[in-house]
Amino acid sequence: MQGSMTLYSYFRSSASYRVRIALHYKHIPFKYEAVHLLKDGGYQFLEEYKKLNPQSQVPCLIHNGKPLSQSMAIIQYLEETFPNPSLFPNKPYERALVVQICEAFNSGIQPMQNLAVLNELEKKFAATQEMKAQWVRDWNARVLTSVEKLLEKSAGDFAYGDSITAADCFLVPHVFSTKRYNFDLSPYPKLLSAYRHANEIEAFKLAAPERQPDYEA
Amino acid sequence: MQGSMTLYSYFRSSASYRVRIALHYKHIPFKYEAVHLLKDGGYQFLEEYKKLNPQSQVPCLIHNGKPLSQSMAIIQYLEETFPNPSLFPNKPYERALVVQICEAFNSGIQPMQNLAVLNELEKKFAATQEMKAQWVRDWNARVLTSVEKLLEKSAGDFAYGDSITAADCFLVPHVFSTKRYNFDLSPYPKLLSAYRHANEIEAFKLAAPERQPDYEA
Repeated sequence: MQGSMTLYSYFRSSASYRVRIALHYKHIPFKYEAVHLLKDGGYQFLEEYKKLNPQSQVPCLIHNGKPLSQSMAIIQYLEETFPNPSLFPNKPYERALVVQICEAFNSGIQPMQNLAVLNELEKKFAATQEMKAQWVRDWNARVLTSVEKLLEKSAGDFAYGDSITAADCFLVPHVFSTKRYNFDLSPYPKLLSAYRHANEIEAFKLAAPERQPDYEA
Repeated sequence: MQGSMTLYSYFRSSASYRVRIALHYKHIPFKYEAVHLLKDGGYQFLEEYKKLNPQSQVPCLIHNGKPLSQSMAIIQYLEETFPNPSLFPNKPYERALVVQICEAFNSGIQPMQNLAVLNELEKKFAATQEMKAQWVRDWNARVLTSVEKLLEKSAGDFAYGDSITAADCFLVPHVFSTKRYNFDLSPYPKLLSAYRHANEIEAFKLAAPERQPDYEA
């Protein structure tokens, strides 16, 4: 019934991490295919991979031979195809508020700190490691201040109320990503609380970077 | 039945433009509230506006007194609340492919060229007007090459097949935005064809920046 399911992923990729959480939360078995984003110039640029995802990004989910990329698209597809347990509230407005939180991470902050952008800052503006790290910290300070305001309205134990939603699938990988930049999260208590509660859930533990077959310390 | 509907928008904002298209396509009357993103340091930063959208961004839709931001969240909410005419295919996989195209614009390219990022490049790296324009052109060349590959698989008259979908709501404002940077679109024939076809539709004409009450030449 489930059919074949393969996830092309990189252990450290936030977007891959989101989809791993959703798959584990929905108890969907899948084959893990590692795509090393750095080695040999990046395996995502190989012609073979580009046939699956012309955007040369992870994640890419292959369900019954059909490829799908973009974490938001994948998680909504999984929700429709494997509705239980659900990652979205029932009511349209509440569902939209969850998507709003997802997008605050997906389009609001992650693009500013992804590998391609940091590489461009180095190439075009001779940004040093420290300048790149400061760029990431400044964007996080700006965007997470507003995300905290959203969470003040919505959060219970988790990002949206007292049940896990897709918003937690986006929040947890993002918070994890900030640790590389020594970013101080103490001004964002709602964010931190949701992060800690979600990480007690088995699906979030199984999806963590250090639990993936391609993990490197 | 429809209830009150107000859109906080800025004529030039791509994300606002997307939502305007969806509203017009679905024949949903709405009140237009202009938020000038540049004047007096930006009206989006006023406390009164932040109560509606803590992220200080446009668009923000207020439906029956309930605010919602993030164009992806808004367009999906409109689809669920006003399903006809539809902006998404019926089948989950096809719907996901449309979201994938939307996200290629929403998280894949728009964040790299938004006002806040260009301002940061100037502030942090002393980027000149020409350096910022080149930054935008280089990102477009990179991302649109891969978007064109997606469109080669999906496009008919429009971005996804021969009917208007949400993908066109994202594609048209993006193509429009590139005109400010003298970006050569000739290497992207599928993109251009979808853009031209969509712009023949009344909803797209009504949503265009030059038709908005806050338009400035």
